[in-house]
Amino acid sequence: MQNLHRMKGESKDGGNPMKKTIQTAAVIGGDLRQVYAANALSQRKIEVLALGFSGELPLSPSVKLCQSEEELQGADLAVFPLGITGEKDTVRTPLGMQSVSFSKCLRALEKGAFLVGGKISAQEAEQAQELHRNIRDYLKEEKMAVLNAVPTAEGALELAMHELPCTLWKSRCLVTGYGRIGRILAQRLKGLGAQVTVAARRQDALAWAQAEGYEIVPIGEMEEILVHQQVVFNTIPAMVLGREQLRCLRKDCLIIDLASKPGGVDWEGAAKLGLSAHLALALPGKAAPQTAGEIIAETVLDMISEEQ
Amino acid sequence: MQNLHRMKGESKDGGNPMKKTIQTAAVIGGDLRQVYAANALSQRKIEVLALGFSGELPLSPSVKLCQSEEELQGADLAVFPLGITGEKDTVRTPLGMQSVSFSKCLRALEKGAFLVGGKISAQEAEQAQELHRNIRDYLKEEKMAVLNAVPTAEGALELAMHELPCTLWKSRCLVTGYGRIGRILAQRLKGLGAQVTVAARRQDALAWAQAEGYEIVPIGEMEEILVHQQVVFNTIPAMVLGREQLRCLRKDCLIIDLASKPGGVDWEGAAKLGLSAHLALALPGKAAPQTAGEIIAETVLDMISEEQ
Amino acid sequence: MQNLHRMKGESKDGGNPMKKTIQTAAVIGGDLRQVYAANALSQRKIEVLALGFSGELPLSPSVKLCQSEEELQGADLAVFPLGITGEKDTVRTPLGMQSVSFSKCLRALEKGAFLVGGKISAQEAEQAQELHRNIRDYLKEEKMAVLNAVPTAEGALELAMHELPCTLWKSRCLVTGYGRIGRILAQRLKGLGAQVTVAARRQDALAWAQAEGYEIVPIGEMEEILVHQQVVFNTIPAMVLGREQLRCLRKDCLIIDLASKPGGVDWEGAAKLGLSAHLALALPGKAAPQTAGEIIAETVLDMISEEQ
Amino acid sequence: MQNLHRMKGESKDGGNPMKKTIQTAAVIGGDLRQVYAANALSQRKIEVLALGFSGELPLSPSVKLCQSEEELQGADLAVFPLGITGEKDTVRTPLGMQSVSFSKCLRALEKGAFLVGGKISAQEAEQAQELHRNIRDYLKEEKMAVLNAVPTAEGALELAMHELPCTLWKSRCLVTGYGRIGRILAQRLKGLGAQVTVAARRQDALAWAQAEGYEIVPIGEMEEILVHQQVVFNTIPAMVLGREQLRCLRKDCLIIDLASKPGGVDWEGAAKLGLSAHLALALPGKAAPQTAGEIIAETVLDMISEEQ
Repeated sequence: MQNLHRMKGESKDGGNPMKKTIQTAAVIGGDLRQVYAANALSQRKIEVLALGFSGELPLSPSVKLCQSEEELQGADLAVFPLGITGEKDTVRTPLGMQSVSFSKCLRALEKGAFLVGGKISAQEAEQAQELHRNIRDYLKEEKMAVLNAVPTAEGALELAMHELPCTLWKSRCLVTGYGRIGRILAQRLKGLGAQVTVAARRQDALAWAQAEGYEIVPIGEMEEILVHQQVVFNTIPAMVLGREQLRCLRKDCLIIDLASKPGGVDWEGAAKLGLSAHLALALPGKAAPQTAGEIIAETVLDMISEEQ
Repeated sequence: MQNLHRMKGESKDGGNPMKKTIQTAAVIGGDLRQVYAANALSQRKIEVLALGFSGELPLSPSVKLCQSEEELQGADLAVFPLGITGEKDTVRTPLGMQSVSFSKCLRALEKGAFLVGGKISAQEAEQAQELHRNIRDYLKEEKMAVLNAVPTAEGALELAMHELPCTLWKSRCLVTGYGRIGRILAQRLKGLGAQVTVAARRQDALAWAQAEGYEIVPIGEMEEILVHQQVVFNTIPAMVLGREQLRCLRKDCLIIDLASKPGGVDWEGAAKLGLSAHLALALPGKAAPQTAGEIIAETVLDMISEEQ
Repeated sequence: MQNLHRMKGESKDGGNPMKKTIQTAAVIGGDLRQVYAANALSQRKIEVLALGFSGELPLSPSVKLCQSEEELQGADLAVFPLGITGEKDTVRTPLGMQSVSFSKCLRALEKGAFLVGGKISAQEAEQAQELHRNIRDYLKEEKMAVLNAVPTAEGALELAMHELPCTLWKSRCLVTGYGRIGRILAQRLKGLGAQVTVAARRQDALAWAQAEGYEIVPIGEMEEILVHQQVVFNTIPAMVLGREQLRCLRKDCLIIDLASKPGGVDWEGAAKLGLSAHLALALPGKAAPQTAGEIIAETVLDMISEEQ
Repeated sequence: MQNLHRMKGESKDGGNPMKKTIQTAAVIGGDLRQVYAANALSQRKIEVLALGFSGELPLSPSVKLCQSEEELQGADLAVFPLGITGEKDTVRTPLGMQSVSFSKCLRALEKGAFLVGGKISAQEAEQAQELHRNIRDYLKEEKMAVLNAVPTAEGALELAMHELPCTLWKSRCLVTGYGRIGRILAQRLKGLGAQVTVAARRQDALAWAQAEGYEIVPIGEMEEILVHQQVVFNTIPAMVLGREQLRCLRKDCLIIDLASKPGGVDWEGAAKLGLSAHLALALPGKAAPQTAGEIIAETVLDMISEEQ
């Protein structure tokens, strides 16, 4: 296990780093990430209640499985999944059999409890406020976004390795954008021996990429190098690979788009040209649910810690 | 494309680096590696004849598809696959429809032609000698073995990423053995942010691993660190992970055995303990047939070059 | 030569990338960085006039040495040194014999000329405005700050290697701060095989450091790991190593303070404890004047380019 | 301190890993390396006697300073310096005041004691045998040679950084030879962001360099790339940079020769061409005496361990 929290040096006593100690946490619904978030909290000597899970799951024996919303009562922390509700008031429970109601959970939880979820909708936030609960979004935390770049990058590498008939070693790879994902991905590609070029718009992003050891190209001039690329990883949420750019690519170039919707690829154009293009979203949960869950747990505990 | 040969600086004119220039090469049977070997030879201004391939393959248009052994006549180089014959005299042609006879090929090829194949059996060598042909084994070339360590390592990484619920980043990975594969694999794992320990027997191998930045452990003392590992990659063709060692591992430890048969894992023991253990052989052809084919082409040309 | 500009892909024709082409540049006073800035401009097909230099200097033959301010007249770009004037109106010319007057230069230069300098004082800016000239500070450019982190990091490494009786390999190094210098320095130290811990205050900085492969410690908790460190590199302009922290260090720990004044070390305390502590400022000009000069040239050309 | 031995996992109890435990070690003469070798032995719970040292030295308080050869009597291990004797029978003691006699030491030491030295001359070996003592050379140990490549590489980097007006980052560096030093040096240069090309003669060395991520060139064809190099590091003990090669270099190219005598540079030719060429020998002792001393101590203990 990765035990991200151990790296922080905060919990040298193996205990809970916060001033106002969390005693009991409820983890409610969601996919494997939530399972591993529950385990991570449990490892920190927090009593963990889990609702919305059943069957054969890699849950720690110390996590207590609940059957109803009422059992969450004593929790002073509640972690809802990334994308809380599906239909109306129903919490997404892809790993559970019974139905879980968001509002019942909210009512069961005490007012002082710290409530978090991911990608909270306006409606969900409103629902919480009507019940005089405040719920915070861990997806908005910079720390989480940075750490999530790692499983995203690994997921992208795995996909590239799977699709390519050649090694990443010695392959020319273009990374468009040098934000969180671009930066981590470029580092990993270089570590595998790929020849990495970073395309970005801003001078300071290009300076960073140059200082960290990559070839660089202003994004407006990248057409001329496209023909040499074996893979293009896009991380910019804008039309980076439009028809004109796609035409510059070799037929066997692989495109992996990591940017959130609408993404940066003219998909229709790519299909017409017979290019292999992949939209790879939500990779942390798919490629490394355990790490993604631990990142959620650590981020949430930091949010509490900073609150105080 | 990776164009390994370009890196060598030998063929700056884009031409053929050898003194006795190869004019025509025959690539006979085999899997995608042979297809890409044919392409790589073709890129070096060698006329390439391919026998034993049909249908939709990524062959260069400049490669000439042959239908019979007789058409190979003019070739001064013949490249047989890794594992030449299947039943008796029949060349393995998993990508072709018609049957190809090894002895007919040998007879069609001129005596002066340079013949190579991979993992040549005693019987195959004998068959060649009876026809007064000498056939050499490219798999015995040190250069090939070194370069093949790269697609092997990438294949192992892809498998590990696919199997693990967590990232390689921050994972504790043990690499047993520090020969070709161990050395390349350890480097890549470190590049991905894993915490790598190298276990080896010889003091100088341990010194190398230490100098190149890894934690080390003499193989006889590795039991005590096994419990911390998330993945164990074995590259030693000896019983490294016997029952005793397996018992030291965590239940969620992933085992990837890269050593040639019989490998280094007590498979029965691993199954009994419920451990996830994978025998990963012949990765270059599976994970990166293009690179593997280019490595074959380059190795063969070097063999000819050194012959002279 | 490093030809930083070539990496930008902007000047594929070897020419000048700007819309409004700079024909003639004046480089006035300063140290070796200015000499190399002159060379770098000259390599871009700009005619370069140099004032305030004499004797044996590594100036390109194509750079024209001037003897008086009046000769600068035709320039459409003027580059003043980092720290323009020494006494009153006199431009610093440590590499020249004659005296150069800032105001005479300003008068000689045409109004349309693009004027830049480094660390421009309020008085210097005022002086320029009185003559209806606008002068811009290249030191304020983010790009320059980022790129300068590289020669700074190398200078710090050289100093550490020089001072330490041991290798950086396997040494425990603490880098306080994960801004520009901290980030580049940590990367280089890891590349040399040091065991790097990053101490920072902000959660997102720690997350970045963690994602990029370092051990981390919140700065408030770093006391406990100080005892293990062989070198502490400070990059935070605040009292990071006060008396209390210094007392935690081993007697043979090396301290290198890279933060701008007042720096982050209790110098008196360090002296009393007999610790080896070094204030290392303005490293780019000292450790790598050529690279520093090329960075100035490239930054200035970008400033012009963005102006348009 | 680096505590190389801790990495070995041999001495988890902080004690002595050998079956036949060394109780007392004598460290006799030599430079700072011997001082640190004494400290390293002392850290392993071995009683250490030091002869040939005086004044202000960084010796551990637990090391016992001796004044005469007779005091060495109880030692079961004696470590002589690298280059044992200067004139006749006198042990080199650059850090000591009194004269130390090699033969008196040999006589004082018991017959069962394990005796080692570095670069033992035929005469010294004979002298030992006459007194029925066997003395072994730690410099011949592969492990020592490998580990010493690290301080050698760091010393070469420090020298290059000191001499170059530019950063190693983005500099084109040629490393000739891919043995111990070439391999470690290339790795470090890449870690600093240099563009590294490896020149070697053997195909398998080139394959290794290629697999580990460097540009490669067969040594016979390196003339054509010499003109682009900012630094050439030679590690081959043969005339690699003869007059013809030197003429291909740029005037500001830096040459660092790390090969043992006679080295690989036409020194006279280099002088005539005005090239900056440096012969850098015995770097471990100069650049990192502490690490070099720890490597000696560890190597010696391994020699004893393997003896048994």
